[in-house]
Amino acid sequence: MALKLEPGARLVVATHNPGKARELAEILEGRFELIAAGDLGLPEPDETESTFVGNALLKARAAADASGLIALADDSGLSVRALEGAPGIFSARWAGPEKDFALAMRKVEERLEEVGANDRAAWFTSALAVAWPHGPAVVVEGRVDGTLAFPPRGLRGFGYDPIFVPDGHAQTFGEMEPVAKDAMSHRALAFVKLKAALL
Amino acid sequence: MALKLEPGARLVVATHNPGKARELAEILEGRFELIAAGDLGLPEPDETESTFVGNALLKARAAADASGLIALADDSGLSVRALEGAPGIFSARWAGPEKDFALAMRKVEERLEEVGANDRAAWFTSALAVAWPHGPAVVVEGRVDGTLAFPPRGLRGFGYDPIFVPDGHAQTFGEMEPVAKDAMSHRALAFVKLKAALL
Repeated sequence: MALKLEPGARLVVATHNPGKARELAEILEGRFELIAAGDLGLPEPDETESTFVGNALLKARAAADASGLIALADDSGLSVRALEGAPGIFSARWAGPEKDFALAMRKVEERLEEVGANDRAAWFTSALAVAWPHGPAVVVEGRVDGTLAFPPRGLRGFGYDPIFVPDGHAQTFGEMEPVAKDAMSHRALAFVKLKAALL
Repeated sequence: MALKLEPGARLVVATHNPGKARELAEILEGRFELIAAGDLGLPEPDETESTFVGNALLKARAAADASGLIALADDSGLSVRALEGAPGIFSARWAGPEKDFALAMRKVEERLEEVGANDRAAWFTSALAVAWPHGPAVVVEGRVDGTLAFPPRGLRGFGYDPIFVPDGHAQTFGEMEPVAKDAMSHRALAFVKLKAALL
């Protein structure tokens, strides 16, 4: 087995997050035949690892082994410098079972007030993993640096996008056109690495 | 960057375990120029992940990014069916700070007595990860099934080898010639997968 992804290959996308699935589909631009893990009835494994790459790998591995197809998974999150990298891999969990990111963004603001930090530096990380059923896996990581802005601005994107202004820009990820975000995002940067490795 | 390992490439071996380093060197058979992470003064990162592949990846990633060289790491352990997979990723930690595997093997025997299990099924797992500095990483996993035998037999190998009899054989890994163990071990099987993926 060579580590190659042929154009048109069938890929299971191991995410149950519709926002992520949509972005991955945009980034992959019709290169592959994408199948949602949920559509195959695959369960969502617990994200028990302590790093983005570890969790992306775990999700891709589980989906590939259960489906018999090559699987792609993303694990990503927001890290805030003044909060020692929090929420990090717990980014989704800060939004609670209701996936309420308005609440999660308020939590970030409150924690910053609690620690009395003026530092607003933050970064988004995306780990992408591709796993072959019962075979090897490849993982890459992309990162974009920026600054937090409160209150949240913009209705686009998902998750913490409305409070994140990437360096060199004025708009939050929540305000940007999808095509603009896709050109610079952590997920897009990770995909550039993945493409260089596998295509 | 293509995911290829050219023969003769320099590889940092990210293990501080002399037994593992020796086995990897035997398995890699002079294909690469191997450099020990300890010889470069690289620190040993905490194994904070909850899977073999996660920990192998973490160690390879850390060594590659710190050294600027392609790094290879192994994470491996013994899983006992009647102990729900323990010691698993904690295999080395059961041996304590003194790395006393005679103690660790006694612990396995005592736990089996405590749970009153007659089932002696067990397996060794080895995850191998290759990471490019600040680039992609590839991970594979190999597994060998067998049976536990007490008391420990044989002085070869390392770790739990003296209590593990691989299926279809009568000797423990501790009794086998290195060349025999290297032909069937979890680490060798993982390497076959890695080779298929990268060479």
